[in-house]
Amino acid sequence: MKATVYHGARDVRLESVDDPVLREPTDAIVRVTRAAICGSDLWFYRGITQWDPGDRTGHEFVGIVEEAGKSVSSVAPGDLVIAPFVWSDGTCEFCKKGLQTSCVHGGNWGDDRNGAQAEAVRVPQADGTLVKAAPEIVHGSPHLHASAAALCDVMPTGHHGVVSAQTQRGGTVAIVGDGAVGLCAVLSAARVVGAERVIAIGHNPKRLARAREFGATHAFDSHEPGIAEEILELTRGGSPAVVEAVGNQESMDLAAEIARPGGTVAFVGAPNAIDKAPLRPAFVKNVALRGALAPARSYIDELMRHVVEGSIDPSRVFDLTLPLDRVTDGYEAMDRRRAIKVLLEVSN
Amino acid sequence: MKATVYHGARDVRLESVDDPVLREPTDAIVRVTRAAICGSDLWFYRGITQWDPGDRTGHEFVGIVEEAGKSVSSVAPGDLVIAPFVWSDGTCEFCKKGLQTSCVHGGNWGDDRNGAQAEAVRVPQADGTLVKAAPEIVHGSPHLHASAAALCDVMPTGHHGVVSAQTQRGGTVAIVGDGAVGLCAVLSAARVVGAERVIAIGHNPKRLARAREFGATHAFDSHEPGIAEEILELTRGGSPAVVEAVGNQESMDLAAEIARPGGTVAFVGAPNAIDKAPLRPAFVKNVALRGALAPARSYIDELMRHVVEGSIDPSRVFDLTLPLDRVTDGYEAMDRRRAIKVLLEVSN
Repeated sequence: MKATVYHGARDVRLESVDDPVLREPTDAIVRVTRAAICGSDLWFYRGITQWDPGDRTGHEFVGIVEEAGKSVSSVAPGDLVIAPFVWSDGTCEFCKKGLQTSCVHGGNWGDDRNGAQAEAVRVPQADGTLVKAAPEIVHGSPHLHASAAALCDVMPTGHHGVVSAQTQRGGTVAIVGDGAVGLCAVLSAARVVGAERVIAIGHNPKRLARAREFGATHAFDSHEPGIAEEILELTRGGSPAVVEAVGNQESMDLAAEIARPGGTVAFVGAPNAIDKAPLRPAFVKNVALRGALAPARSYIDELMRHVVEGSIDPSRVFDLTLPLDRVTDGYEAMDRRRAIKVLLEVSN
Repeated sequence: MKATVYHGARDVRLESVDDPVLREPTDAIVRVTRAAICGSDLWFYRGITQWDPGDRTGHEFVGIVEEAGKSVSSVAPGDLVIAPFVWSDGTCEFCKKGLQTSCVHGGNWGDDRNGAQAEAVRVPQADGTLVKAAPEIVHGSPHLHASAAALCDVMPTGHHGVVSAQTQRGGTVAIVGDGAVGLCAVLSAARVVGAERVIAIGHNPKRLARAREFGATHAFDSHEPGIAEEILELTRGGSPAVVEAVGNQESMDLAAEIARPGGTVAFVGAPNAIDKAPLRPAFVKNVALRGALAPARSYIDELMRHVVEGSIDPSRVFDLTLPLDRVTDGYEAMDRRRAIKVLLEVSN
């Protein structure tokens, strides 16, 4: 089959590799229909995190089960399934609490040369990991199929930020970042959690306009001076819930600055570019800086219901769709900021 | 009257100054009976934070109301009162939520030349700030009087760490630090909140022994190699609640390392000596790093009840008692680690 292989900074290639095979009775083999490129893939692409040549890339995919190990009972060949961005057993203490990212038998796509930007994937712990797509998605438009691909990571990540920040129905939340995750956080806040005041902060006018379409009630350009003061004024003292969806120093500092005393800043991106956390304002204001690596698996069913009912359309975060054989163009487009997020059409 | 005055690093002096007078109808004048020296006073004493010569020191005191402004109704001359380490109006949004450290009309002792290591203090917002001592304390032993002085800051700070870390009755909490605040956190966890497993971590065998007397079920010497692994083993994956009561890099890193996925690290000290927060483990484990500057005012009544009932004896964190005119010796003793915490006897 074809799979995307890392060779070095700004060098990923689609290559022929061995087809995946079942190894454990808990495995399944899934033929990928849609995959995606994640903002976090840019860390290794840009050489900021170190990978080994030969590693496989991609951790977001939707596909059809081709083969299931003999102890797999929740999915069967022919099922369309959605995979969260880590795999998990579904039975350990942490999975039962909805914290599948800390599963004691879990792991990451890409480990063991098993990436998702490929024609097929071996899925360990298939029962704990895969979610069967709703019939409306199976029989629905390509559009719904794209929304399903957004349920692997980006939409649950935005949603987890909103939930982790303890956003209240009818309350206020500020979302720092207008990338794909920030936009999904706006969707979650406005359409899933039902916050009344959703403040989007970014630096791209087109994306901020999209944030308004997604339900933001206010949009601030972070390049304008004095926006922290404006937000403190608007909220009369800060937002009780803040989602930090950029992952750099400036955005983390702004998030802490606009947090209300007693509030929570949930940070949803790997904090690779944050040198110094704003511990002092957090201390003085009794604010929690809450790490929020999304346990996507625990949200997929709920978010899929919203997709099917039409209350959210996360497919709109994909602004470039390419066939798998143009995966390298997809990386380049995201690296050069020509695309927010790329959807890869692998098969039908 | 006599008051302690800052002149520079390692230079505080007891001097004659003007007696405080009422300025606002909401003020009270309190004659100090007991004051204390706080671990946080060592920041300016050691020259790490910058103060102006002439500033007054001290933010912990118990005393007798001498005069009350005409709009003060909750205390009257002759009352023995306990003052939290900040003053607050008791009526704003944050005070009503029990977050008096963020009071919109609040302030700090020491501001405006009004420190607590003195014979008398002007108390702004007296109704919102002062707590009348229980009759058992008014008529009780010097011992209870000392416990009352521990309710100004150190005991509520330890307790707030335990509460902010979301320690559960019957649950597990790890407390990093065996100073006065860490020991009070142990007391709170074991005797107020009722945690079943209280893990104390420090580096002073005598203080760790005191922690055991206060209710710690386990004590670890942080100088021993491999204690993080031991605690992870003991807790089978980390403590859901961790109190960071030191405020340096090593203790913050250890706190994050031993936190259970989904748990909370509450940090109760000013993070002046933490250069880099452990954001990555917090992100990966969905751990909150929660700032926890204690709103002491909101806990004094509850903790005083425990003192009167005998379930806690926070007077034991004072291991050196001096008259006010030896305040400079008190600073020196704490600076050189000859004392954990100094009680100043000012009057009776």
